[in-house]
Amino acid sequence: MYDVAIIGAGPAGVSAALNLKLHNKSILWLGSPKGSRKVELSEKIANYPGVPMVTGAALNEAMLAQARDLDLEMTDKMVTKISANRKGFMLLGDDEIFEARCVILTTGSVTAKGFAGEDALLGRGVSYCATCDGFLYRGKTIAVYCGDKRYEHEAVYLAGIAEKVYLFTPYKDVDIDLPNVERVDKPVKSIEGEKRVNALTLFDGSVLPVDGFFILRTAIAPATLLYGLELDGPHIVINRRCETNQSGVFAAGDCTGRPYQIAKAVGEGNVAAHSALDYLADLEKK
Amino acid sequence: MYDVAIIGAGPAGVSAALNLKLHNKSILWLGSPKGSRKVELSEKIANYPGVPMVTGAALNEAMLAQARDLDLEMTDKMVTKISANRKGFMLLGDDEIFEARCVILTTGSVTAKGFAGEDALLGRGVSYCATCDGFLYRGKTIAVYCGDKRYEHEAVYLAGIAEKVYLFTPYKDVDIDLPNVERVDKPVKSIEGEKRVNALTLFDGSVLPVDGFFILRTAIAPATLLYGLELDGPHIVINRRCETNQSGVFAAGDCTGRPYQIAKAVGEGNVAAHSALDYLADLEKK
Repeated sequence: MYDVAIIGAGPAGVSAALNLKLHNKSILWLGSPKGSRKVELSEKIANYPGVPMVTGAALNEAMLAQARDLDLEMTDKMVTKISANRKGFMLLGDDEIFEARCVILTTGSVTAKGFAGEDALLGRGVSYCATCDGFLYRGKTIAVYCGDKRYEHEAVYLAGIAEKVYLFTPYKDVDIDLPNVERVDKPVKSIEGEKRVNALTLFDGSVLPVDGFFILRTAIAPATLLYGLELDGPHIVINRRCETNQSGVFAAGDCTGRPYQIAKAVGEGNVAAHSALDYLADLEKK
Repeated sequence: MYDVAIIGAGPAGVSAALNLKLHNKSILWLGSPKGSRKVELSEKIANYPGVPMVTGAALNEAMLAQARDLDLEMTDKMVTKISANRKGFMLLGDDEIFEARCVILTTGSVTAKGFAGEDALLGRGVSYCATCDGFLYRGKTIAVYCGDKRYEHEAVYLAGIAEKVYLFTPYKDVDIDLPNVERVDKPVKSIEGEKRVNALTLFDGSVLPVDGFFILRTAIAPATLLYGLELDGPHIVINRRCETNQSGVFAAGDCTGRPYQIAKAVGEGNVAAHSALDYLADLEKK
C-alpha cells in the first residue's frame, strides 16, 4: 500500500512527486520514464519562470533528472482503471494491481475523443490493455488503434496471439512489418456490436468484422479511468485545493483544463501534493 | 493607460509579466527591481521543477534576468491605493498616479497584522506613503514604522521635514543616525486618536504623543489596497481563473493563500495573465 499514486509524468506529476518525496511519502509513480511528450516536442518555451528560453526537450529532461536525483522512480505502466475500496484505491497498471491511500491524476489533456461505442463496449471486446486481455483473442481477428509509436510493441505482442490484426495509426512511419498485420488508412467511425464487439465501421462506410478492438492511447479519458469522477467537458473538475469530487483523488495539470501551460501544471502539482499531505494526515488521525 | 498593472515582483508577478509581454500587452509593473525578498532569502529550494536544488538568491535572480531579457521593466513604487473608475483602474504609486485597464495583484503574504487603530485612522494621521503625505508634518512630531531596511531612505526623507521622528523597526541594524531621529525598542500596541492620530500606545503601556504615524511595510494589506476586495482571513479570495470578486482584478501567489510555494505562485501568475488576456479581449469587443 503506497501513500500516494501519481498518474502521469509531465510537469504536474513531477511537481507533485518532488513535494511528496521531500515529505518522505511512499510514492507509486505511474508514467512514462520519458516524461511529457507534449513538453518534449515543444520547440521553445519562453514563459516558464526561472528557466529562460529553453527547448521543450531540455526542460523535460531537466525535470526528469531532478526527479532521478531525489531517487524518484517511475513505473512504466499504463493505468487503465482506478477504483476506490475501503482502504484506499486499487489501480490497474497493465496487468498488475497496485494499492495506494490516495491518488493524484496528472494525465494531461485528452485530445482524442473516444470512438462511438467505445464506452458501451469497454470490457466486451474493447480493451485498453494488450497485456491484460490479449490472451482472449488467440486465433481471432482483432483491430488495434495504436495512438503513439511507443505502443507498437504492444501491437506486435497482439499480432503474436491473434490470427489477423487490422492496424490503425494516427501517424505514418509505422515500423511493424508482419504477415498478419494489415494497415488500414481509413479512420474508424464507430465500434459495432450488441453484446460484444463484432465489427468496426469506417468513415468511408465500409464495415470491418472483428472480434475485438484494442485502443492504445497516450491517455485514457478520465471518466473511463475512475467511475463517477466529475468532469466539465473533457476536463476533471477540481477546486482550488486540486480536490476532485472523489475524496482522496486529486488532479493537476492539463487534465484540469486551460491554460495548457507548464507553469500552471507545476503549480497545481504542488497544490495537489500539499492537499494529499493534508489528506494523509487526516487519515492518520482516524 | 496601460493594458495591465501587475503589483509585485515575486514569482507570481514574473510569471504574469512574461506571459503578458509575449502577448504584446502594455504592462505597468510595480514592484521592487530586487524581486522577491522571501525567495531571495530562501536557503535552498528543492521542489521547483526544472531547476534542481537552487539557492533562493539564484532563482530570484534567474527570474529577474529572464524578465529583463524580454525588456520588461519594473517601476519601483509602493502602491498604496487602487480604485476602479469607468475606464479601468487608478493606482497610486508613491506620489504618482497610474492608469490600467486591469490589475493583477501578486503582493505576497502579509504576515504583519495591522496595528490596532490603523484602519480607522488611515488618512487621518496614519499614512503608508512618505512622499505623498510627508509635507503635512513640517515641524511636527511623527512616528515611523520602517518594516524593511530598504525603506530607510523614506524615514530619512521624513526626518528632513518633521521636527522629531520616533523610529520603530522589526530589525536591529538600523543605518539612520540623525539628531532628530530616536529609535524606540518597545513595540507599538495601538494608534490613539479620535478625529486624528494624537499618540501611540506601546506594549509596555507607555504613551508617545505624535501628530502622525507613517507605516512603511513591504506589503499593504489587500483590503486596504482596494476597497471591497473579498478576503478570507488575510488572503484574497479567487476562483480557479484567479479572478477576484472585482471585475478586472486578478490575484496570484502567496496573497491568495497556502501553500506558500514558488511553483504555486508561478502557476497562478500564468493563469491570472491568461484570464487578464481574456478580460482585455472582452473589453475590445464592447
